[in-house]
Amino acid sequence: MHPFKDLEVSLIDNLLYIIFVDDVMYNSTRFMIDSDIKGLLSDLQTLVRQPSISSKKEGLEECANLVSNIMRKSGIYSTVFYYDTSTPYNRKSTIPPIVYGEVKSKSNPNGNTLLFYNHYDVQPVEPIDRWEVNPFGGEIKDGKIYGRGAADDKGELITRIKAAEYLLRERGDVPCNIKFFVEGEEEVGSPHIASYLQKFRQRLACDGIIWEFGYVDTQGRPIINLGMKGMLYVELVSRGLSHDLHSSLAVLVRNPIWNMVKALNTIWDDKNAKILIKDWYNEVKEFTADELAFIQHQPLYDIDEFAKKYRINRFLKHFDDREGIKRVLAGAPTCNISGIDTGYIIQGAKTVIPALAKVKIDFRLVPNMNPELQFQRLRAHLREKGFSDIETSFIHGVSASRTSFKHPFVKILKNTAEKVYRKRSIVNLSSAGSGPMSIFVNTLKCPCVAAGCTSIFSNIHGPNEYADIGLLKKGTILMMEIIRDFSR
Amino acid sequence: MHPFKDLEVSLIDNLLYIIFVDDVMYNSTRFMIDSDIKGLLSDLQTLVRQPSISSKKEGLEECANLVSNIMRKSGIYSTVFYYDTSTPYNRKSTIPPIVYGEVKSKSNPNGNTLLFYNHYDVQPVEPIDRWEVNPFGGEIKDGKIYGRGAADDKGELITRIKAAEYLLRERGDVPCNIKFFVEGEEEVGSPHIASYLQKFRQRLACDGIIWEFGYVDTQGRPIINLGMKGMLYVELVSRGLSHDLHSSLAVLVRNPIWNMVKALNTIWDDKNAKILIKDWYNEVKEFTADELAFIQHQPLYDIDEFAKKYRINRFLKHFDDREGIKRVLAGAPTCNISGIDTGYIIQGAKTVIPALAKVKIDFRLVPNMNPELQFQRLRAHLREKGFSDIETSFIHGVSASRTSFKHPFVKILKNTAEKVYRKRSIVNLSSAGSGPMSIFVNTLKCPCVAAGCTSIFSNIHGPNEYADIGLLKKGTILMMEIIRDFSR
Repeated sequence: MHPFKDLEVSLIDNLLYIIFVDDVMYNSTRFMIDSDIKGLLSDLQTLVRQPSISSKKEGLEECANLVSNIMRKSGIYSTVFYYDTSTPYNRKSTIPPIVYGEVKSKSNPNGNTLLFYNHYDVQPVEPIDRWEVNPFGGEIKDGKIYGRGAADDKGELITRIKAAEYLLRERGDVPCNIKFFVEGEEEVGSPHIASYLQKFRQRLACDGIIWEFGYVDTQGRPIINLGMKGMLYVELVSRGLSHDLHSSLAVLVRNPIWNMVKALNTIWDDKNAKILIKDWYNEVKEFTADELAFIQHQPLYDIDEFAKKYRINRFLKHFDDREGIKRVLAGAPTCNISGIDTGYIIQGAKTVIPALAKVKIDFRLVPNMNPELQFQRLRAHLREKGFSDIETSFIHGVSASRTSFKHPFVKILKNTAEKVYRKRSIVNLSSAGSGPMSIFVNTLKCPCVAAGCTSIFSNIHGPNEYADIGLLKKGTILMMEIIRDFSR
Repeated sequence: MHPFKDLEVSLIDNLLYIIFVDDVMYNSTRFMIDSDIKGLLSDLQTLVRQPSISSKKEGLEECANLVSNIMRKSGIYSTVFYYDTSTPYNRKSTIPPIVYGEVKSKSNPNGNTLLFYNHYDVQPVEPIDRWEVNPFGGEIKDGKIYGRGAADDKGELITRIKAAEYLLRERGDVPCNIKFFVEGEEEVGSPHIASYLQKFRQRLACDGIIWEFGYVDTQGRPIINLGMKGMLYVELVSRGLSHDLHSSLAVLVRNPIWNMVKALNTIWDDKNAKILIKDWYNEVKEFTADELAFIQHQPLYDIDEFAKKYRINRFLKHFDDREGIKRVLAGAPTCNISGIDTGYIIQGAKTVIPALAKVKIDFRLVPNMNPELQFQRLRAHLREKGFSDIETSFIHGVSASRTSFKHPFVKILKNTAEKVYRKRSIVNLSSAGSGPMSIFVNTLKCPCVAAGCTSIFSNIHGPNEYADIGLLKKGTILMMEIIRDFSR
């Protein structure tokens, strides 16, 4: 769940395809020869060709074993951990396993330890008819490798594995300790990540975490995210009848949709973009002067171009200035209705009083907001406003996470990325998206940064997902350089 | 579109199954011998076995021809009229034809003319897995004939055809002139009925119309409806984006659902069950003292039983008293949301800003309200409240119709029904439902009454639709008696 995941590509950014042969400034390059790239692509094809759709519980154990095998082949110690080993594995009911990997530095065993967090599961491929290639084919053409997971997250994962492999090949050792933690439920909200981390927290002890994604913008600038937003995902249900009723009876019967509309109306002030639930903003902190100065000096996305691409015509009031960028990257809790399920929605005129109205709302949270507490505030609000008959379900909750931009780990990442991409980086205080980053940071007590090699228009989550081969090379070198630089 | 059409049966009302052999009080009975019933059921099976689903344009011409053939076999002059005869018939694009039928009275050619309005099209059969019989089988068991259209409207239609046939057989004549007008688009809102009526209004000239349906309650009491409500069916669309967007961008982008919620909120006062659109109620008249007295003395449905059956727990304020019954049968314009289509509604947590929110609203109208005018008032309201960006579509509109309870035609119907059913009738000033009755009444300038033989729990529009064979007999006799009594 991060900001560009379900966007589609409109233009193929050929500028990003940098001919690698010109790249001679790093030591690592001498190890990225043609055969290395072939090996990387071949292993990535192996992973892409194995469907591993967590929402359908399809191919997960198979994919975990493939990842573990590739790690072992690369010289990484690897094992597959099951959540519950007391019962036999069952495709449909078992919690998908974790792939663990580890390379101890012989020369620097007591030095830093870097943890890579990735995931081997992917999004479903529907709508299948909009794919121009086999979603599980791993087809290579025009400098790209296509397929579900080619970028998110099998592509990013392979760059991390290959970085360790090439370093091991170079000198038979790695400059710092490396660990891998690869889960199989990221695309369904990582429901067991907290339990897994608790269970393996000693084994996972580390000094810095590289998050599973990292983007590159259309100008070839690396985007580094220092945090993720939190999330409270709820369902509200208003019920009125055992099943849909002929609407002629609307003279007598209250329609549960109307009840829902009236309740929703009390939650959000659309004109002022403000959540109207009491105490909702209590824990929200203003940016510090340092943070504001940092934001002020960062290069920004071209939001206008973005708005044009998606024909966005309804903006909140702050859109046009730098304040808007601040909202995206770090500030501003949101209250977004993701969907309403009620009544007859097909072509034509059917006349029913729907039995119920169900609404899905995602509230994005900023640091210090607690999803459980916010949920209680929502419930209290509905009660107080006279809507205690509306059922509330807590579907999913996670706190925001943010590593300080002043942390030495961030400086290493930023410098390394700028060196590899030969561009000034964009450092975001937070991604606009949400994810379980806070669980890692809080359990393992260390900084966490998202950096990688995915073009922001890679069709992630959509049809025709691809990874740019030039960027996969750069991503691998980036990871090699991070490992080097983190050892110093 | 009338009130009990999509209700399901819970109990089979065996009390209604009156052994016909005991019924010796009418002249007509001697013509309803066993072979007559066999003929009626056989013709009804022929019609039920021919699917004629107007929403899918399936089997319509075929069914129209079957109806016409059955009429001819019964001694009724019949022809099939096409809307446009200049182009060859095309299953998918042609407007379904009308079946016209006529029997001139030899003994009374200048006397009254009675018009039967019916339809040969049916609702779709989905959900197919909930049928316990073949929906197009016409299976007979336990005194019932099953199948889509067995009651609505092929069952009602066959009683009218058979009434003419048996009268013709009895004396080689009918006591008054009879006309049949059977359309093929009732289940999709009769979009061409006005044009057909205009085109054939001279041929259809008559002194009274029997509407296509008529119910019998669980106590065996005939329900006679003197009118139907009007309808304004609209779709509202709020747009914001070219397609769904990741909801992390809700910090910048206005969600079109919120715009819709805010707009809907201004339309309806849920607490007081009142439409908030300016001038909405301008043309609504209070009941006259006569009408109030009439309602006061009518027997009523058992609304409590009905509420229990459907587990209705959300009532408008007037539900528990006789005032509520008045609302159902005649008063109270409604504003009902039939469905909202927006965003992600499947199991699980997806986080999107939906590209658009679409809402279907059915407004029931009472006499004197003009659907076009009300639509303009809705548009003006949205503009005035700041929602001119919400698109409004007029999907369907029809005015209410009401024949006075004092009309002599009504008295004939009421007396005849009470004689045949041997119960006091329930006479409703209007059905709670809507239909094109006003188009008939206004074009042909004559009274129109709905009476027939369908149990209110016949699963009309739902799975396992059936007609009670005892009621089909009674319905046929009712029509024979109406034809007799209308000639006097």
